[in-house]
Amino acid sequence: MPAMGLPFTHLTSTKQLTRSDTDATLKTAQEMEGIVHKGGCDLLRGKILASLFYEPSTRTRLSFESAMQRLGGDIITADGIQFSSLYKGETIEDTIVVAAQYSDIITMRHPEVGSADRAAAVSPVPFINAGDGPGQHPTQALLDLFTIQKECGKIDGLKVAMVGDLRFGRTVHSLSFLLGLYNNIQLTFISPKELTMPAKVTSFCKEKGISFTEGSALEAALEADVLYMTRIQEERFTDHSEYERLKNVYTLKAAHLKGKKTIVMHPLPRVTEIATDVDALPNAAYFRQVRNGVPVRMALLAMLLGKA
Amino acid sequence: MPAMGLPFTHLTSTKQLTRSDTDATLKTAQEMEGIVHKGGCDLLRGKILASLFYEPSTRTRLSFESAMQRLGGDIITADGIQFSSLYKGETIEDTIVVAAQYSDIITMRHPEVGSADRAAAVSPVPFINAGDGPGQHPTQALLDLFTIQKECGKIDGLKVAMVGDLRFGRTVHSLSFLLGLYNNIQLTFISPKELTMPAKVTSFCKEKGISFTEGSALEAALEADVLYMTRIQEERFTDHSEYERLKNVYTLKAAHLKGKKTIVMHPLPRVTEIATDVDALPNAAYFRQVRNGVPVRMALLAMLLGKA
Amino acid sequence: MPAMGLPFTHLTSTKQLTRSDTDATLKTAQEMEGIVHKGGCDLLRGKILASLFYEPSTRTRLSFESAMQRLGGDIITADGIQFSSLYKGETIEDTIVVAAQYSDIITMRHPEVGSADRAAAVSPVPFINAGDGPGQHPTQALLDLFTIQKECGKIDGLKVAMVGDLRFGRTVHSLSFLLGLYNNIQLTFISPKELTMPAKVTSFCKEKGISFTEGSALEAALEADVLYMTRIQEERFTDHSEYERLKNVYTLKAAHLKGKKTIVMHPLPRVTEIATDVDALPNAAYFRQVRNGVPVRMALLAMLLGKA
Repeated sequence: MPAMGLPFTHLTSTKQLTRSDTDATLKTAQEMEGIVHKGGCDLLRGKILASLFYEPSTRTRLSFESAMQRLGGDIITADGIQFSSLYKGETIEDTIVVAAQYSDIITMRHPEVGSADRAAAVSPVPFINAGDGPGQHPTQALLDLFTIQKECGKIDGLKVAMVGDLRFGRTVHSLSFLLGLYNNIQLTFISPKELTMPAKVTSFCKEKGISFTEGSALEAALEADVLYMTRIQEERFTDHSEYERLKNVYTLKAAHLKGKKTIVMHPLPRVTEIATDVDALPNAAYFRQVRNGVPVRMALLAMLLGKA
Repeated sequence: MPAMGLPFTHLTSTKQLTRSDTDATLKTAQEMEGIVHKGGCDLLRGKILASLFYEPSTRTRLSFESAMQRLGGDIITADGIQFSSLYKGETIEDTIVVAAQYSDIITMRHPEVGSADRAAAVSPVPFINAGDGPGQHPTQALLDLFTIQKECGKIDGLKVAMVGDLRFGRTVHSLSFLLGLYNNIQLTFISPKELTMPAKVTSFCKEKGISFTEGSALEAALEADVLYMTRIQEERFTDHSEYERLKNVYTLKAAHLKGKKTIVMHPLPRVTEIATDVDALPNAAYFRQVRNGVPVRMALLAMLLGKA
Repeated sequence: MPAMGLPFTHLTSTKQLTRSDTDATLKTAQEMEGIVHKGGCDLLRGKILASLFYEPSTRTRLSFESAMQRLGGDIITADGIQFSSLYKGETIEDTIVVAAQYSDIITMRHPEVGSADRAAAVSPVPFINAGDGPGQHPTQALLDLFTIQKECGKIDGLKVAMVGDLRFGRTVHSLSFLLGLYNNIQLTFISPKELTMPAKVTSFCKEKGISFTEGSALEAALEADVLYMTRIQEERFTDHSEYERLKNVYTLKAAHLKGKKTIVMHPLPRVTEIATDVDALPNAAYFRQVRNGVPVRMALLAMLLGKA
């Protein structure tokens, strides 16, 4: 059964998505918000989501599982699969074919780049990538996009600043690629010189004609419509002293936002990069952003199951 | 939405509870028993409970999850959060606000005293403490109270003996505080001298005018209406030899209960403190006590969601 | 409430099963397939399955949980119980009685032989063994039988070859015992000499008059109606070099099956014993076999709950 409104069965990468796909997804997500507000529905009654997490990502897992249940569906969960029998030397391909015998749709988080493509290549049921290591995490990128549209009323023409660990930050890469589908986007990349945006993103911007500037001062980001903060990720550093030196390089405070309409996003968890005095400001969109993950994932589950 | 029958949105401590609150809760729990008996209901259809366990407590978790499902609700579970991404340096406050974006009500078990109050202070949805370390565990205390009422037909005027580890035993502290809401309660505290009831409880009793006696001989407890046994908890001892010396200090046997109507309670798991020959006696209320956790938690879930 | 169509309340061993029981189970499983095809049903609405796994077996757990949900039931899950509070020195008997207070039916996986019988002896609700160490795993044996019947249209009169680790392979033992209920079965046991079928199975065959031959060459197995491959299980070897020597002793390839109708089964996970070029052949029944676990477990859940 072809997905309604999407020209593919499996979602592994933002690179699959056209403007028409993101439009359809965001529109469906908006309808899903109404369903959440009304207390859920029975659209996916009788359907089962297999939620396969080879590395812990409680946030993403709970968001998917909430989405499935808001639609009346059920879930089967394998968290920490590497310790389990599903893993005894078994290939990802076999695991996916097995899980498909128990379920109607699969989402998987796996530490290896490319694992999602391997899974999608064999899955007899719709498959959604919930993050493959430093690779792709398309549902995060789509919920980021949905948040921008909801907060700003549009996406075309916006100034978006990304701040923090732009080198290893998977979310800012994926969001940059998705913003390439929109018009007149202006990007600002702010990071320590050790953590600048990699060439794969800057080359993409040049190729697509997206204007961008790079710098290292937080102040340069404060005039943007959207300020996307990221965490300096301890787990990416082999040299711990370098992490210690960089971890607090940016801390956004309420004072920075005085008189500004800039909306502040963050994929969470945050550590020190956004002070808690920001939380009470209308600018603080990061918890609304988390919430937006549910309708976006509801939209994808329903569309890929041909039920949207 | 205010809770029906309860003057608060979050339940973190037995200290919040008045006699009117315990009356309302036990009355609702009794109605919930009827619902369980009839095979559940749809009262919380479309609602999601986030079940967040930072330390394993399978018993409490399964009881909450059973309760939510008996009411037609759904669950999202994070067990062993400390190993997960929800935890990467994130504050309890952020975790709770995030979980609230995926759910309609939250329960949390956490090893730190005071964590439940921190969670309740920020939670946008009703919050129930499922145990904060050696601190509070109010749903256990309420199910204990419900059990006493069911088994004895009343609470006022009862003689309740508590036996075993009264120093570290959270459940006997909480139950003592709750019994302070009732009239003419007589308490008997039986423990080795190393594990006597702490001053916070004995002072409370004096202040409230609750009569109590202390001793170390199990026999002194056998005339009570309710005999509440507790486990000597290995994990509380820094000196293992002291645990070895004390662990088998009390063992209740069927012979102790010959000709007596004393009901025997225990928060479980038990090790050697109740011999298995007690299990078959009508006095043995501890498995019924476990069962009572479900209607009590159903009552709290429904009341805090404004649906009781 | 007596189970419909089954003369017992708890299923712990294939040894409980008569031909009439397997007939009833396979017949019900076939009906359950129709229910899965139609998108599930509400037969067990309001019922809760407690899924207790003392050792990881994600495959079996997900299959049970899918089955319960396909019937409209709910699940409470404890995976990795040994790390949890259910375990603090508690006996299996207490754990089962506790879990029964939260649920309507229990399945348990436990590493110790005999644990399932101990559980069934005390369980107040129907109990299904999901594997007790090297002991019994009756639902696997029943799904194997269901697969043979579906693939071959019958069971009586078939030639079944079992290949690989016949010494430690629990599934081939259980299946052999179940095949003893059928007529004119011919068995072929192919293994390295270190891993031959144990006396408990060969004696059983002699006693029941089941014809069997033993050998070590894969070729001798290729003429069977059913070729049941098993994995050489690393975890069973104390001497790792012996595992290394034996692990690749049999590899079934597409070429072996040229022009043959032999159906190929495997309990999964497979490592190298079935080459992936077999997957595309109509002979490859092992993923269909996984799928068959769901209707078979649905049948057992429904029958033991008196709802089939």
